[in-house]
Amino acid sequence: MTGDIAELVDAARNGSTRAAGRLLSLVESTRRDEVLALLSATPVQVLGITGPPGAGKSTTVAVLVTAYRRRGLRVAVLAVDPSSPYSGGALLGDRIRMTAHINDPGVLIRSVAARGHLGGLAAAVPAAIRLLAALSYDLVVLETVGVGQSEIEIAAVADPTIVILNPGAGDAIQAAKAGLLEVADLVVINKADRDGADQTVRDLRAETHAPILKLIAAQGDGVDELVEAIDAHRRADTPARRSARARAQILSLAQSRLQQHPDLDRLAESVAAGGIDPYAAAVSLLTEPTAPSSPA
Amino acid sequence: MTGDIAELVDAARNGSTRAAGRLLSLVESTRRDEVLALLSATPVQVLGITGPPGAGKSTTVAVLVTAYRRRGLRVAVLAVDPSSPYSGGALLGDRIRMTAHINDPGVLIRSVAARGHLGGLAAAVPAAIRLLAALSYDLVVLETVGVGQSEIEIAAVADPTIVILNPGAGDAIQAAKAGLLEVADLVVINKADRDGADQTVRDLRAETHAPILKLIAAQGDGVDELVEAIDAHRRADTPARRSARARAQILSLAQSRLQQHPDLDRLAESVAAGGIDPYAAAVSLLTEPTAPSSPA
Repeated sequence: MTGDIAELVDAARNGSTRAAGRLLSLVESTRRDEVLALLSATPVQVLGITGPPGAGKSTTVAVLVTAYRRRGLRVAVLAVDPSSPYSGGALLGDRIRMTAHINDPGVLIRSVAARGHLGGLAAAVPAAIRLLAALSYDLVVLETVGVGQSEIEIAAVADPTIVILNPGAGDAIQAAKAGLLEVADLVVINKADRDGADQTVRDLRAETHAPILKLIAAQGDGVDELVEAIDAHRRADTPARRSARARAQILSLAQSRLQQHPDLDRLAESVAAGGIDPYAAAVSLLTEPTAPSSPA
Repeated sequence: MTGDIAELVDAARNGSTRAAGRLLSLVESTRRDEVLALLSATPVQVLGITGPPGAGKSTTVAVLVTAYRRRGLRVAVLAVDPSSPYSGGALLGDRIRMTAHINDPGVLIRSVAARGHLGGLAAAVPAAIRLLAALSYDLVVLETVGVGQSEIEIAAVADPTIVILNPGAGDAIQAAKAGLLEVADLVVINKADRDGADQTVRDLRAETHAPILKLIAAQGDGVDELVEAIDAHRRADTPARRSARARAQILSLAQSRLQQHPDLDRLAESVAAGGIDPYAAAVSLLTEPTAPSSPA
């Protein structure tokens, strides 16, 4: 069995994206540890691209892949976005933005198994990244959408985490509610030729310390500046900034666990009925043990 | 000593706002329990008015007080907003909106002691409300501003909690970050004659289930509709809605406590340095006991 895996690793290293895809399936399966045991840990750059549905994440990923291919980097794209136009390594739908990369052996595009499978994203994504690094990919791009939890998980492994929004308040409010502004390393206002883009930039400046860039991904406007901002982020990042982001991530993940606390509904009903005050309920929530072990 | 308090209670019930003010000072002092022991619990309507600085909370409070005075209600205003133009029962500053009510014995205006004093707002505000109810005030208006924590505390005792925002994305993003949209019973877009008010209403509709009203408080436009919405809220509120708000309040208060957890900075540094993953850190944060008892 392990012999099969070793052959797949050799084939993938020799440029077989099909072998790489099979290995990715294996790290999402119960054979994950068998695969990981054969691989040495290799550092790799990980970009996180997140934001609300329709913000233009896939288009942004496509233009970034083009930019990094020009630099000669081998790029893997892991899509955690259920609305993303990729599935199982193949492209789906009529809004295909990655056509330029389909036959490029230097680009691997792959959907990641759904949440909840084998420990969810928290376990699946780091394992996939470790595999891709060992297969000599230079850059892994993680694309995700969700209600907060999955983006925060991605932010925990990506550097930088890039939050893509559209002009107008809607996307910004949604990102703020999800805690995304706290974990963003770069904020990108895509479709920046639309009305209100400058106002959105101004509104967000008061709410995040991250650099805010304008982009028209579909036309390629602003891509060079985005790539430069990614480089600048990596040059300028400091332990203090990484700690601040880690703090936001930890709190967000803790909040997600609390939201699933088995006592929460009962406590909320008691508070609503005047039985206990919300302080006592909060203390109780933090004092009672949560479900034993699985990631929230 | 307790005899003095009984005399003050009599004087306050007979219409002395000065005596009422002295009693409010006492419930913020170490003599709180002495005062509360003399009072029977009386139900009272509590309105919470919150929102970012400059949104027009004080102006809104002033027009609401006028409206409820017309109904013959005795109204007490407790200002927890450090930027509010009231202090120690007197009015300060040149932006005085409550002049119409200064000499009205049916209106009491009072600042509440700063946070951290005798258990903070969480302890001081319910005690003050209980006092005001016993002194035959029919309505207590709580006005607050802050970075989330104080508004959530107010939301826990007020019904309805009214969030005042201005047109544009800035206020809405700030309210979303603070978790205010989750605990709002009514959202009011004040200064609704400014550009973008309708767009702000549309943007917010996607992010909250609370009714959204437009107001021009300085001109009195929309006040009748706001008073009617407050009445409607009280008629239509259900245990399920109250539980949902209590849930948001509990989670917000729990999050505040976690933000002050003594291990958080150490865990964040460890995650940033790659020592542990953010999941393990979140679990550790929830498993380790927090500081013993005082409200966060």
